Amino acid sequence: MPSVPSPQSASAVRLEDLEDMARGAAFLGAGGGGDPYLGRLTAQHAIQTYGAPDCISVDDLDDDAPVFLAAMMGAPSVMTEKITGVDEIETALAALEQHLGRKAAAIIPAEIGGINAMLPVAIAAKRGVPLVDADGMGRAFPELQMTTFAVYGVSTSPAAVANEYGEYQIINARNDKRTEDAARQLVIQMGASVGLSCYPMLGSEVKRTSVHGTITLALGIGRAIAQGRKDGDPFDALLAYLRTTDYYSECGVLFSGKIADLERKVEGGFTRGKCVIKNDDDGDDMEVIFQNENLRASVGGKTRCIVPDLIVILDADSAEPITTEGLRYGQRVKVMGVSCAPNMRAPNALQLFGPRAFGLEEEFIPIEQRINGR
Amino acid sequence: MPSVPSPQSASAVRLEDLEDMARGAAFLGAGGGGDPYLGRLTAQHAIQTYGAPDCISVDDLDDDAPVFLAAMMGAPSVMTEKITGVDEIETALAALEQHLGRKAAAIIPAEIGGINAMLPVAIAAKRGVPLVDADGMGRAFPELQMTTFAVYGVSTSPAAVANEYGEYQIINARNDKRTEDAARQLVIQMGASVGLSCYPMLGSEVKRTSVHGTITLALGIGRAIAQGRKDGDPFDALLAYLRTTDYYSECGVLFSGKIADLERKVEGGFTRGKCVIKNDDDGDDMEVIFQNENLRASVGGKTRCIVPDLIVILDADSAEPITTEGLRYGQRVKVMGVSCAPNMRAPNALQLFGPRAFGLEEEFIPIEQRINGR
Repeated sequence: MPSVPSPQSASAVRLEDLEDMARGAAFLGAGGGGDPYLGRLTAQHAIQTYGAPDCISVDDLDDDAPVFLAAMMGAPSVMTEKITGVDEIETALAALEQHLGRKAAAIIPAEIGGINAMLPVAIAAKRGVPLVDADGMGRAFPELQMTTFAVYGVSTSPAAVANEYGEYQIINARNDKRTEDAARQLVIQMGASVGLSCYPMLGSEVKRTSVHGTITLALGIGRAIAQGRKDGDPFDALLAYLRTTDYYSECGVLFSGKIADLERKVEGGFTRGKCVIKNDDDGDDMEVIFQNENLRASVGGKTRCIVPDLIVILDADSAEPITTEGLRYGQRVKVMGVSCAPNMRAPNALQLFGPRAFGLEEEFIPIEQRINGR
Repeated sequence: MPSVPSPQSASAVRLEDLEDMARGAAFLGAGGGGDPYLGRLTAQHAIQTYGAPDCISVDDLDDDAPVFLAAMMGAPSVMTEKITGVDEIETALAALEQHLGRKAAAIIPAEIGGINAMLPVAIAAKRGVPLVDADGMGRAFPELQMTTFAVYGVSTSPAAVANEYGEYQIINARNDKRTEDAARQLVIQMGASVGLSCYPMLGSEVKRTSVHGTITLALGIGRAIAQGRKDGDPFDALLAYLRTTDYYSECGVLFSGKIADLERKVEGGFTRGKCVIKNDDDGDDMEVIFQNENLRASVGGKTRCIVPDLIVILDADSAEPITTEGLRYGQRVKVMGVSCAPNMRAPNALQLFGPRAFGLEEEFIPIEQRINGR
């Protein structure tokens, strides 16, 4: 667990934390994961109605406590067009609980990046169970099987998928990729974005497989940006904070410029495309390619940062993270590269979500080897 | 319950019953339902291994006894190319039991026509639970929602679909047609033919909604044909037996001739097409159109029998029922029309599986009104 300088511990996710947490989740979404501001509204409503949920460290989790994921699945471009309710997630969660014959003692986010960082807050609040301060990515990823849970041996299935009509399907597939494929089919059949619970775990498995402390980290990132704006330079404050963390300490601003070209389409349930950023001083352009999340940032054909390290495009002034859907022609932006969690860089982890898992024919090279003068 | 002249009651489905039962199931398949001879081999193996399952009347069923369907789903043309195991049905059954938190006290066939009449014998034998002497059609139909269970208010879902790799999905849809659509998608995704359990019921619901006594009837039909072959005329024996039954008593040979044309293709998971039968005496041809099952038999454009009444094509000499897949150019055949069960002719039943449900733009007119000189 990283040491977090914030005076508030993550003992509860309070109403006044949500704005910062959503900003941090947008940052850790690395362009993807869906817009956390929608999730924030959902979480806000749930806390106002049911009270703030406790947020507990993985260390405080009983080894045999049933822990359930709560998430939405679908193309972020579609999610932003639908009102995101908690109903479909609750339907999926209840179906999986019923199927397994055990009740959630705690809720864990699948991914700390994007909307799926915020929606579990609402579910935990409504259910009156704690939220686990951890996730399966330390960022966001486009596919179900791209988690540390899977890397370290937890099965994606049984998984439950549900829509807003109370319909659900429970998937039990022979491997994680087939679970992803089956769930993706259901996204298309059941309504473009669906509620999801998968990777049912016990506390001991959460401890062993998750990326720890990431709710606290999202909150810390969001706060650092907000505080930096008051103090004069949000990028300085953000970088200073990241350098205090265990995972995200290798970081830097890779590029500054203006969005000069943008290709983006929804295809096979994903938002795919690229954006070209023009340098302020007529040097080479930066190209960022994405599949929901930003996958590779390169300048003049040379890779500067690559998945699973985080590539984040931010507003050049406010350091507000910009999601793939939020990119606009002419925006002035800075592009940051940030190291991912160490358990996401192991060889079997890179097989699941390294460059080649996204069809990029190059090795993963950690950001610190690139920014420290390679 | 019809009075059955057979000396054996249906108190157990014995090894020596299987041949006759399969022949009766082929007859009640009305061309569809998949080849019951494959199912017979499966049932035979199960009885040899686990002993003969009891076959109980719906009257002997406790009102609160959990009853589960056991079936295969897929295009019959595909089923005949795969070895039909009980594994996928058992996986589906166990998944649905686990999901509902109750164990099958008895097994009921979805349809008494075709392979799905025989496979439940194997499942009941293996599980050591009785088989209920009833089904949801009194024949075979191509779609999940086309049952008396659905007509009289039992929900198709939750439904479990499984393949031979132990993969399963549980479907909970908002109406029966959406369950059918979802299951049909899984047939395509999971392996062209899948194991299925749906319409989970209690004994009281089975009593109220099913077509009673149909296992006994299938056995009686098969026996009548076999006995008739020994006595000289299987058609006479068959018609004589059918006239003693409650449901199938309105019956007759509509046409005799030779198959002169045959169109048949697998499309959207169904075997669709038509066959033309040339009259022995140069009169008008008979045309039989089918979607898995025979839907309409017409002569010179005039309908002689139409779904849900049964249209059965049989070998002209042996009275062996011929499935849609078994039709061959040049075969000498007789075509029979047979009345369906009364609870399948109610207006809401006809909505589900009357002519218009299959895209045929005509009213259902009972066979007895046609053969008795309309």
